Amino acid sequence: MTSGVPDRRRRVREALTAAAIDLFQAKGFDETTVDEIAAAAGVGRRTFFRYFPSKEDVIFPDHEARLVRVAEVFATASADEPPLSVACRAVHTVLEAYIDEGVIAVQRYRLTRDFPQLRAREIASAHTYNIAVTRYLRDRVGDEPEGALWAEVAGSAVVAAHNHVLRQWLKAGGKGDALGKADRAFRYIRETLGVTAARADDGEDVVVAVLRRGMPLANVVRRIEDALER
Amino acid sequence: MTSGVPDRRRRVREALTAAAIDLFQAKGFDETTVDEIAAAAGVGRRTFFRYFPSKEDVIFPDHEARLVRVAEVFATASADEPPLSVACRAVHTVLEAYIDEGVIAVQRYRLTRDFPQLRAREIASAHTYNIAVTRYLRDRVGDEPEGALWAEVAGSAVVAAHNHVLRQWLKAGGKGDALGKADRAFRYIRETLGVTAARADDGEDVVVAVLRRGMPLANVVRRIEDALER
Repeated sequence: MTSGVPDRRRRVREALTAAAIDLFQAKGFDETTVDEIAAAAGVGRRTFFRYFPSKEDVIFPDHEARLVRVAEVFATASADEPPLSVACRAVHTVLEAYIDEGVIAVQRYRLTRDFPQLRAREIASAHTYNIAVTRYLRDRVGDEPEGALWAEVAGSAVVAAHNHVLRQWLKAGGKGDALGKADRAFRYIRETLGVTAARADDGEDVVVAVLRRGMPLANVVRRIEDALER
Repeated sequence: MTSGVPDRRRRVREALTAAAIDLFQAKGFDETTVDEIAAAAGVGRRTFFRYFPSKEDVIFPDHEARLVRVAEVFATASADEPPLSVACRAVHTVLEAYIDEGVIAVQRYRLTRDFPQLRAREIASAHTYNIAVTRYLRDRVGDEPEGALWAEVAGSAVVAAHNHVLRQWLKAGGKGDALGKADRAFRYIRETLGVTAARADDGEDVVVAVLRRGMPLANVVRRIEDALER
């Protein structure tokens, strides 16, 4: 059972967002006032500011709620699960939230392309996920040398993979298998950055060999010998 | 021979930046006016706006000039040099520019920690490097499948490595071997992300083996066998 009050809050919120998207598209961002958005949604100016701190915020998703979901994945993950796998699962929930929004997410994307103020806000928001993921990875590697470097690089890579898949989906007007693409992108991240920086660079020369499971063992050995001697 | 006019321009610019840093530290960002900064630097308000479009801009480096240096590295790189190596060299020039600034860079860092408006600007600026590097990498991989994913992940990773090394140096008050740390960080990036996404994921299972040059060959073979069977 859901309470009626949160339902009404959600409806008002959605009405304000829909009104703002229409007005920004029709008149431009600077030319639209908060009063006009409120009026179009059938509420007053003061009600608007109970929902959103500023005109920029009205079209953006509830990033706080999304960060809470990310934090929940971190808090409930087993210590046995590789940190990067947990990070990918956490960022996956953000992608799901965009896809659930559907057409709203696509309209917002178009507005952020047209209006620099909105694009700046988008960049700042994406950065909060980056910080959350990097912090989790850093906590998991503890005091390992170069752990902080690895955490920042791997955290940025996970968010970059998410951004890439999300942007492709938004550019295509919300069409295509974004979740499948995300699975492949995250697998690539886990395969390439699963080894922490300290283990990949502990003062000795490192050889990274990329092999296929189907490759005959003799070829594998020759390839490794080549790599070690190179 | 250098012309006197650019010299004078540089001196005025530096005087405005120094005055702004002093005033922001002493009074706070919001409490400082453009008129006060101009007066402290011995010029008028209109002169201030010939140098900087806004109060935020006065403490930030000339990112346009830094982006020009980055673009020059891309334009002059040989087609034989691996794309990620070029990207690391380009971002290295940005790190050098911060280190050349010395105490100014450290003071700016402290101000961006204290004042959210300045931090937001910093995040947006860092993002422009990200876009430039990603675009170069994408051009280099051309139409390779998943090339755009790889470019975005690798570009973000290079910038993240730079950010990490720079932030450590700034936190330490501009002390320590940032360039040496950057070399190691960039080597880690080249070793882990030098293989493009398409080559790492062309539909077959992939095994990435990280080995040491000093490892006996028998151990290498056993380790690979283990990995392939896992």
